[in-house]
Amino acid sequence: MTQHFQRPGDPLFTQRTPRVVAASKLHRRRDREKAGRFLAEGPQAVREALAAGAVRDIFVTEDGRRRHRDLLHGASSAHFSVVTDDAMAALADTVTPQGVIAVCDLRDVPLDAALASRPKLVAVAVEIRDPGNAGTILRTADAAGATAVVFAGDAVDPYNPKCVRASAGSLFHLDVVRAPDATAALAALRGAGLRTLATSGYGATDLDDLLDDGSLAQPTAWLFGSEAHGLPDELRDAADAAVRVPIHGRAESLNLAAAAAVCLYASARAQRSR
Amino acid sequence: MTQHFQRPGDPLFTQRTPRVVAASKLHRRRDREKAGRFLAEGPQAVREALAAGAVRDIFVTEDGRRRHRDLLHGASSAHFSVVTDDAMAALADTVTPQGVIAVCDLRDVPLDAALASRPKLVAVAVEIRDPGNAGTILRTADAAGATAVVFAGDAVDPYNPKCVRASAGSLFHLDVVRAPDATAALAALRGAGLRTLATSGYGATDLDDLLDDGSLAQPTAWLFGSEAHGLPDELRDAADAAVRVPIHGRAESLNLAAAAAVCLYASARAQRSR
Repeated sequence: MTQHFQRPGDPLFTQRTPRVVAASKLHRRRDREKAGRFLAEGPQAVREALAAGAVRDIFVTEDGRRRHRDLLHGASSAHFSVVTDDAMAALADTVTPQGVIAVCDLRDVPLDAALASRPKLVAVAVEIRDPGNAGTILRTADAAGATAVVFAGDAVDPYNPKCVRASAGSLFHLDVVRAPDATAALAALRGAGLRTLATSGYGATDLDDLLDDGSLAQPTAWLFGSEAHGLPDELRDAADAAVRVPIHGRAESLNLAAAAAVCLYASARAQRSR
Repeated sequence: MTQHFQRPGDPLFTQRTPRVVAASKLHRRRDREKAGRFLAEGPQAVREALAAGAVRDIFVTEDGRRRHRDLLHGASSAHFSVVTDDAMAALADTVTPQGVIAVCDLRDVPLDAALASRPKLVAVAVEIRDPGNAGTILRTADAAGATAVVFAGDAVDPYNPKCVRASAGSLFHLDVVRAPDATAALAALRGAGLRTLATSGYGATDLDDLLDDGSLAQPTAWLFGSEAHGLPDELRDAADAAVRVPIHGRAESLNLAAAAAVCLYASARAQRSR
């Protein structure tokens, strides 16, 4: 059971209470790095954060305390504090907060640690900048059974509130890796026995051919580039194959989230086929 | 070749010029319905709109006129007018407009007309409200080779600027249908020989089973519900099957765009397999 941080009869925390002020700063990447903490907003994210043992503090409004009683009751390790609606508005990234938000420890692991468990399916997002896309890739990779997502190169911060929200809890399910040197990451992935497949609209290999020849059953790391620029040429060339998702109609391409879903689920199916 | 609407030496159109004022109103759904027109912004959308013969007017900035010379040169049926940067800011939905925007005729067709060509693959978006999701479904459906997208029930306006942008031109490639009565649309789809498959996280049928038994090769209409509420129960029950995309990890579900990509590409592959 969670412990109430305030004493009975204490006033609600306001947006000027030092603990709230400190937590509100976690909207900024620099402050997240400095504190080693980030914010997870809403009951779903807080539930997954609690299950992952990542929570340091929980803030709830009086209304949120009533609405999310089970959530607060089910957790054993975290304190919670009741805050004013104004304080919640300062803490929250959404326009209509759901009354509960948690301060969590950053949880990325080194690439070596993620590879030590010999993953069979890994998603690598290279230089992607849009937090919504980053969160969607976490969610889709989790659903497809991938066990690690690598944010490589100069990428969006996976602890950006919009990424946390778009991941719908999956940020707490997977090994999250930040690898500023994408080329070194590619070598490490290959060294761990993963076949590296670079997605590209102009890739020489059609995804359907990989499904036909059965080779997607191998342990695989899928590399996805940014929506605006795709993968850097040198990474695409360094990968084991450059793969295109077939375009059957007249669309120029798929968007990043759709391409990632098609590729990761192609691997998921191939790895589970008899 | 496009014709310049202003005469040589005429001043640039400003945000107070009646033609610009009238076009700016097309940001509002009500005004789009009244005028029967909508806005397509940026060179990619304008190019596809011109190719589809949908363009009535083009507005360009002086800079846009230089940058998009080929685009303006290649079109035969549309007038263009040079506008001030302020006028472009009033016309554009984006913060950094790309200097060209077109007024287009609404282009949805009745469901009967879309079904007359006996489509093999149709996407049906039911009561979806997010314009970005709507545009992504258009783009993904186009890429997967679907030839029609039906917006059923109380759905977002496909001519919303954010939807037009997210569709990346695909709005101009497909038969777009608006069908306020979703139940009647389901009956019409089935009447046209399409197997109707309702996506649901709790569907009784696993997508992999449909891939295994080969039945996805049949002409298929995929029904997708809203991100927040899924498909209405009565529609899910009325469809030929309720299908779940398998979740291999710990994610609760896939988001709408990812689920649509996986399902539509599963059909695309099955319909093309030998």
